[in-house]
Parts: sequence; C-alpha cells; structure tokens
Amino acid sequence: MDRLLRINMMTKQATFSNIPAKYSALGGRGLTSAIVVNEVHPQCHPLAEENKLVIAPGLLTGTPASCSGRLSIGAKSPLTGGIKESSTGGLAAQKLARLDIAAIVIEGLPPEDKLYTIHIDSSGATILPAAELRGLGNNDTVAKLTKRYGDKVGYISIGQAGEMKLAASSIATTDMDNIPCRHAGRGGLGAVMGSKGIKAIIVDDSGTPLVPVGDLKEFARYNKMWAGSVLDDANTGRAMPAYGSAAGISIIDQEGAFPTKNFRYGQFEGASNISGKTMRKIIKERGARQTLPCSPGCVIRCHRTYYDKDGNYLGKGPEYETVWAFGANLEIDDLDVIVELGEICDDCGVDTIDTGVAIAMAMEAGIKQFGDGQGALELAGEVRKGSYLGRILSSGAATAARVFGVNRVPVVKGQAMVAYEPRVIKGMGVTLATSPMGADHTSGYCTPVNLGWIKNWRYVPKLQAWGQVDLSRAMQISIAAMDCTGLCMFAHTPLLNAPDALPSVLGMINTKYDWNWSVDDFDTLGKTVLRMERDFNAGAGFSRAMDRLPLFFYKEPVPPLNTVFDIPDSELDRLYDF
Amino acid sequence: MDRLLRINMMTKQATFSNIPAKYSALGGRGLTSAIVVNEVHPQCHPLAEENKLVIAPGLLTGTPASCSGRLSIGAKSPLTGGIKESSTGGLAAQKLARLDIAAIVIEGLPPEDKLYTIHIDSSGATILPAAELRGLGNNDTVAKLTKRYGDKVGYISIGQAGEMKLAASSIATTDMDNIPCRHAGRGGLGAVMGSKGIKAIIVDDSGTPLVPVGDLKEFARYNKMWAGSVLDDANTGRAMPAYGSAAGISIIDQEGAFPTKNFRYGQFEGASNISGKTMRKIIKERGARQTLPCSPGCVIRCHRTYYDKDGNYLGKGPEYETVWAFGANLEIDDLDVIVELGEICDDCGVDTIDTGVAIAMAMEAGIKQFGDGQGALELAGEVRKGSYLGRILSSGAATAARVFGVNRVPVVKGQAMVAYEPRVIKGMGVTLATSPMGADHTSGYCTPVNLGWIKNWRYVPKLQAWGQVDLSRAMQISIAAMDCTGLCMFAHTPLLNAPDALPSVLGMINTKYDWNWSVDDFDTLGKTVLRMERDFNAGAGFSRAMDRLPLFFYKEPVPPLNTVFDIPDSELDRLYDF
Repeated sequence: MDRLLRINMMTKQATFSNIPAKYSALGGRGLTSAIVVNEVHPQCHPLAEENKLVIAPGLLTGTPASCSGRLSIGAKSPLTGGIKESSTGGLAAQKLARLDIAAIVIEGLPPEDKLYTIHIDSSGATILPAAELRGLGNNDTVAKLTKRYGDKVGYISIGQAGEMKLAASSIATTDMDNIPCRHAGRGGLGAVMGSKGIKAIIVDDSGTPLVPVGDLKEFARYNKMWAGSVLDDANTGRAMPAYGSAAGISIIDQEGAFPTKNFRYGQFEGASNISGKTMRKIIKERGARQTLPCSPGCVIRCHRTYYDKDGNYLGKGPEYETVWAFGANLEIDDLDVIVELGEICDDCGVDTIDTGVAIAMAMEAGIKQFGDGQGALELAGEVRKGSYLGRILSSGAATAARVFGVNRVPVVKGQAMVAYEPRVIKGMGVTLATSPMGADHTSGYCTPVNLGWIKNWRYVPKLQAWGQVDLSRAMQISIAAMDCTGLCMFAHTPLLNAPDALPSVLGMINTKYDWNWSVDDFDTLGKTVLRMERDFNAGAGFSRAMDRLPLFFYKEPVPPLNTVFDIPDSELDRLYDF
Repeated sequence: MDRLLRINMMTKQATFSNIPAKYSALGGRGLTSAIVVNEVHPQCHPLAEENKLVIAPGLLTGTPASCSGRLSIGAKSPLTGGIKESSTGGLAAQKLARLDIAAIVIEGLPPEDKLYTIHIDSSGATILPAAELRGLGNNDTVAKLTKRYGDKVGYISIGQAGEMKLAASSIATTDMDNIPCRHAGRGGLGAVMGSKGIKAIIVDDSGTPLVPVGDLKEFARYNKMWAGSVLDDANTGRAMPAYGSAAGISIIDQEGAFPTKNFRYGQFEGASNISGKTMRKIIKERGARQTLPCSPGCVIRCHRTYYDKDGNYLGKGPEYETVWAFGANLEIDDLDVIVELGEICDDCGVDTIDTGVAIAMAMEAGIKQFGDGQGALELAGEVRKGSYLGRILSSGAATAARVFGVNRVPVVKGQAMVAYEPRVIKGMGVTLATSPMGADHTSGYCTPVNLGWIKNWRYVPKLQAWGQVDLSRAMQISIAAMDCTGLCMFAHTPLLNAPDALPSVLGMINTKYDWNWSVDDFDTLGKTVLRMERDFNAGAGFSRAMDRLPLFFYKEPVPPLNTVFDIPDSELDRLYDF
C-alpha cells in the first residue's frame, strides 16, 4: 500500500500521493496516529477545520492473513480531547488495501452546510453531494446507497448522531451481509466525519489485483502457522466462535469482575440470562446465524445475527461490552432488550459503551430506574429522535452526567469505562487509567494474564497491586504494535500464548514488505506509537494526574471480593517509563 | 473573626471551632482556597461527598472599611474541575463577620434526597428541613424565608439550577433591598451547594457587637484615606457610580475590544443602545434607582435597579459582563431584553456569563439566530423550566457546545470567556489563559494598565505582545491578595493608582489585627494564594498546556484592529515564575 488519498472538504479536492517517508513502515493505528500527531494541532477543536480524520487499513490488511481485516480510524477525539484510534471490522479495510490506499486523510471543513459521499474505486475518488441521505440512520443510508452501488462494495457511514456532531458518535462499516453493524465506536470519531460533511464513503475495489504478498508460498506457510495459533487457542479457537465475545460474560461474572449497576457490584444476578451460552441458545432457537466472520478470512468468526421472537432480524449478536453496557451496567437481564438497544445505537451511530453508561447516568439521576428495560428503550428512542435528551445521551457519559447532575461517573479522560471491574482485574484498571485513548479495554488487554490464561507470560494475579503497571505497559505496547498490522485485537491472546504466533506474523510482514523485522522491532513499533500518542495528548493539555481512575474506585470496596483499586499514583506514573 | 463553622450534611451536625493556625491570617479567597487545598481531594468529583463548600468573608469585612462587603465562596468547581473562588456582594458577608465567623465549611452529602436551610445567629447554627422551598427560584425562596425571618437578615440561596446540580449554577446573596440579585456566579458553586442539599443559608446578626477594629480612630483615619482614594479615582469615583460597571461598554467598544457575535468582531453596532449612558437614561426615565451600594459602606455604589416600560421592577441594572453576554455576544441591543435575561438567570441561579455564552452556542448551532432577543428569551425560559434544553444551557458554554455540536467555543479550562477581546486587550488574554480559575476577568484585571489609565504602573499597550505576562502575573498576585481582604475587586484600580491606597488598606488590616504587614507581605499573600490554587489544579490533572486560549484566537484576526493573540506559549508558561 503506497498511496495516501487526501480529501480536502474545503476545496472538494481528492488527491492521491505516494506515502511520504515519515509515514512509511506504518499501518493502521501507527499510521492514523502518526498523521494526527504530525498534521493536527493538539490544541485545535476536534470539530474544527484543523482536525483530520484518518482512515487506514493495517500492514497485513487485504492479504490472506487470517483476522487481518481491521480498519483503524483516527483523529483528535471530540470525546476525550486527546488523540484517538478506534478500529472496526467489516469489508472496507480490505477493499482499501486492494485499492493500494494506505490511508484516507480527510481535511478541512465544507464552508456550506451540505452532506457528501466519497466514492473511491480503481479510477480514483469523487466527492458527491448527498442531500438525500440527510437525517438517515446507518441502515437506511446503506440501503439507499446499495441501490446505486450494489452490495459488493464496502460502506463507511455515520448515522444521525454523527451528522449532529455528537461526542459519542461512531463510524459504521458494513459486514459481509452488507449490514452497517461493525463500528469504530469509541471516541466520537463519527462526529469528526460529520463535521467534515461526509455521510458515507463507498469503497469499490472491483477490478483491482490481489494485494501483493511477496513469496506467496512463504506467506501462506506463515499464515497457516498464524491461523493455527489462533484456532488452537481456547479463546479464539473455541469460546469466541461458539459464543462470540459474549463468551466472557459468565467468566468475568464468576471472577467478581462484571461491573453491575454503575459499578456498585462485581457480579450480576441476571448474568446467566445474558451470557454467551444463553445468546447461543436463543440464536439457534430462532434460526439466526452464528460463528460468522465479520470480514473475509477471519478464522475466529465471532460475529452472529440475532432474531426476535418472530424470527425477524433484530440486530447483530451483541459484543461483550454491549451486553454489559445495556445489561449488568443497567441491571437489565433481557437479551432481546439489549440487542434492540444495540441495534438502535448501531443505526443512529453511537458507541454502545458510552451510550450505555450515559443511560446509567440517567438512571442515577432518577430519569429511569435501574433494571427498567422499557425505560432504557425509551431513552434510546430519544437518541433516535435526536431530541435534546437524545443529544445529551449521544454526547457520552461524562456530558450526560454533567447535564443530569450525577456524581458517580465512571469515566477516564472523558471516556466511559468498560466491562472489567478495575478493583478486581487490576491490570485492566491500570490500562483504563493510563491509556492515551481514555478508558479503553482494547488498548492494553490484561485480563488473560490477570486470570492466568497465558502460559508464556509471568502470572500477575488479578487482585495483586504489584506488577500490574509492568503488565499493562507490556500489553499496551504489544497491542499498539498489533493495531498497526490490521490483525484483530481479539487475536492478541494467541499472539501472547502461542510460541509460533508472533514469529508467523512477523514472517508475513517481512515476506510482504521484504523487511527484516524482529520481535524487538515489533516492540519498538508499539513503543513509538504509544509515545507519539502520549506526546500529542500532552500538547492537548493532558497530564499525568489525568492517568487516574475516578476516586470512588479507590475508596469503595466492590462486592463480592470487597477490594478497592490500590495501585499507587507513583506506580501509575511509571507506565510510560520505557 | 476567630471561628470556623463546620456543617456536616451527612450527620447534620453544626460545629463551631477556633480557626486553626494553618488557616489564620487568611480571609476571603485565601481562606476558601486554603481549606479546599488542605481538605479536598483534588481528584474528587465536584458533586461528591469529598468536596467542600467554603464561604468566607474577607479580613476587613464587617468593619467600616469602605467596599469591604465581599463574600468569597470556594470549592472544587463542577464547571472547570479545578479550584474555584467566586465572590459576591450583598449583606451576608458583613453579618457573618459580625457573628465572628471566618468561614462556613459545608462537608459531606445528605444520604437522603432532601433540602435544608441553615440558620445562623448569635446563639449558633441550625440545620432545618426545607421541603417547601424545593423547585423555587431565588426570588420565591427569599420571599418565603422573609415571611419567617424578616428582611433584616442576609440570605444566601440557590435557584432551581443549583438544586439540579448544573455546572453553571450560581449562589445568590441578598442586597440591601432584600433582593437575591448579587451572585457568586462563576464556576458552578451553586451546584456544590445543591449537591449538599442546602437551599439557603440565613445569616442573622441581630444582637451582635460591632466587629473590633483595634484603635478606632486610627482605623477611621486609614479608612478615610482609602475611601478618598476610591472616590478620587475616575472609574470608581465617577464612572461606576454614574453608570455602574456598564460604564465600560462604550470604552471597550471604542477600543475595538468588545467581543461581538461569539468573538467574531471587536465592535458592536448596537453598543450605544446598551451602554452605561443609555442604561442611566432609561433608569432615570422609568423612575428606577441608581448609584446604590450593594452592601453597607460601599462608596462606589455601582448597583442599580431597572424597571420595565410600565415602571415595574424588571431586574437589577445588569453588570458590564451581563450586558455583554446577552448583548454584543448575541448581537442583541435591547436593554429590556438583556435585563430580563439577566433576571431569569438571577432567579434560576445561573451565571449570566456562562449562560450567555451557552446561548451563543445554541445560536451557532442554528437553534436560534444571533440578534433574536425573543429567541434568547425563549431559551432562557427553558432554563427556567428546567427542560433538557434548559439543563444543557445551565451546564455552561463548554457542555452546551458539545451537545449542540459547535466548534467555535470560547472557553478556557471549561469556563466561558468574557467581555474583553483577548486579541486586543492582550493582558486580559493572558489572564484568561492562565488564571487557575479558568477564563476569569476578575482574577487578573489588566485592562486599566493596557489602556494606559494607571499612572503608577509601567504602560503596557494593549496590542503589544511583550510585557503582558509580567503584567498579568502582577495583577493576578495583587488581586489574589485583595480577594483575601473582602474589598471589592472594582477598587483594584485605585489600589494600583493612588499612592495612599495600599498603605491605607494595610493600615486598616494592621490596626484591626495588630499585625505589621508591609507591601511585601501583601504581595507574598497573593503569591501564596495563587501558588496553592495552581498546585490544587495540578493535582486535579491540569497542565501548562491548558493555559491556552482556544486556537481560533491565534489564527483569526478580529476586526476592526485585525489582530490575533500572539503571546507565545513559552511566554504564557512564565506566568507562574515567581
């Protein structure tokens, strides 16, 4: 992938150029972050002309490498005010790679209040007016575009929330059924896309050649090793194909680490009603489908569809975090309700995590009661309507808490916390506190090590304070590097666990690019990415004292284990000692 | 003043104690900030039990010292997330001083969702249930309380916004007409009071002795010097008695520094319609009153009442910042509309500055048009109703901008900017950027020096970049010290200008307390206060890179002078070199 596609929304020009040296040997998050760091003023308003939206497949995306279909999207975040990379699956990434596009860089703002689409194919890129898409959800947007462009292209789109430039807006990508249900959910990147007047990007790779991988046999050999590692892993080879990411629910609940009722408890009475097993049963009973890849070539196949009682498509089988955000977090144990809430969010284009926690804030304020599924659906209906209440809920949990006058606010750097109780799985607590992305489980996933699943890694028991910072640092570095490859972060467990895994990934990269990357180089890449993100945030006003959890996690023991978060500030401040 | 009154809202206990040594020789802002710094965890949620609301008269409050009736209120701010001191006039401060109360410290949260009043008199302090006050504005609250306690006491109260714990909520104090129209407006301190379940504080000083001042003759001699300095000053002796603080409107507009239409222009076509002169004319024509002190003993007498066309009380004669926030800022040039907007804010208990800028954000988003006075009144009506739109507007400009998806957001550290164009009066720009209080004109008022009004100070012309940091530093230090005395910050101009002024203030302090403070001690006090506030903010996560103006001030020249804010970051970072 040798080309940058720059789209200037002020002048409506689309320009291809060769990727400059300073951005070479980067992909995915490495590339989005490097472009943001180099080209975006850290003090700019995230919705102003100075911000840029960068969309980049990974180094291995488009190749046959298993699980390599991730798309990184980056910008200065309207939610956190810092740098952001959020990734999504679906079709678009691989198609961009086949079009030899390393990154789309969307710059400037349209001077007029109009909406556009960007159409990209092998003949170039065109910016087209799209007034007819205004006010549509992702589903209707894609349905309308499909009439024109068919269902073989990849769509990248925003819903109403992105058009309204709200800080929890996501960016959707279409999956293999042409449904816009895969989302770069976190950090409000949909608002940046909306601010630039772009409703959708159509990626048509028809007629493109295969992505070159160097020696095809060599590449295939490494890929086989890699896929083998993924399939051999208990999590990615067995649990996730069977139950999706929701496989984690019963496990984390049993560990006492499943945050319940806005982080009051570590276990949820209704957990079994919303577990991966229950979801699997319902999906089967109602004739929906599971064990599906969200993009071609994924061997994990954690995607699934979910039907209502009458056998009609209700939404995708929700991810672990979505089941949590609308489930235990709100004390709702009805999967039908959770799926419908998730589907509303997917359609309007808002992050299920931040919106779920925003609904928890509404419940804290007494607007609805915890456990009230219909009440939660009414609130989601406001999101769909774009009423003032809906706008508040689409602006992220921190803003919702402010407007509702709530003081129990589980956010770090303005972003809502996730489905790992940081007082119990303390490595995750460190990641949530210190990641440059705000509270983000994907940026340094310590759970497998904290629960003793990883043989190749020194065991750091979940409740122990000591060693968690070193663990989180290592995970943040390793995942930052992995996020450059286009490989799904779900495959990080085999990457850690299987001795063959990282060498096979490096083998594929080296074969494709004719490089000679070692394990150390991979580590250096991760460090470089993390450091530049940290530096951007410092320029934006972030300080070490922002690398903290909300105070109540330090003071209030969480049942049933009755532990608090007890990693000293001085330890947290060691995270960036590398 | 030797006593601290601690009110614990968890246990409903009121306890008097002698002021500990670490808080002695402080008053007003020095005392509120010292207590917040020593007793409040900088990482706590501003609405959580860990925050404390501190209410303190100044060192000279309650004495005959002219203009010494200010009340400092401090806490961790719900608006900025940093430390806050906001001051107000009216009656309460002097009465607290006569009750020998150096500070009220309100701690904890009531476990139950109930409202209370605190009644303080010479026999002690009582916490009383106040369910009947729920949902009332400041006017009705005081009217109801007056039936019980009469009109000779001082009332400190919150409106509906404070009850809802919204981040732009103010705290009102009653003036000499028993009207709750003086406000500690900035930083959302009303929300802290609301979070603690306190609707009003009744301060009854009946039967108290005079505040001791040491040698009465000596004190009177110094006070005469001080009052003479204030009355001799062109601003405090002539302009403000005649026109109120709105005296500044035509001057600042002529300087090209009156921010218009959300900081697009430096002059407002309708300025003369909303000037201090016009206000004076209208007040006279309609039989309202002007040149009134807001608390006994003030010789500036900038307070005034404002009647509608039928001769009915419409509101107080609005302050300079209020006229700006609802006037030039929104392109509204109708004083009746501006007064009504101000009165709605005063009654609901929200800061006119942050609410005015929040309304500007609504206009940026196209919810209403700039210049639409009736539209602005409709929006203020939503504030009064407490609708979701009203809650958004009562949560401060930064939050409103986020929920409305606006990218032109004149805030620093989450607090709305004020009526001094920082690209023109650059000393004010430095203060707005660097003050620990967020964008706050009162915390380092450079305008008089920048406009060449001060003879005793090296002239730093308004447009010049060089010298503004040194100027702002000196003003921030000097005002931080002045804010400890209870003297009104409006008298800072004579304090700078008249050779006798500071010695006479020190003379009064030294006479009353039997101290031996020099000019250097006063300077040291200011530095101490600023430093501790800065340290608190660092603990709360603030960094030097937050001491900046929004980017558009650096990039977009403001007509008619077409200048930008051009103080380098490295210069701004020198502010705290002392």
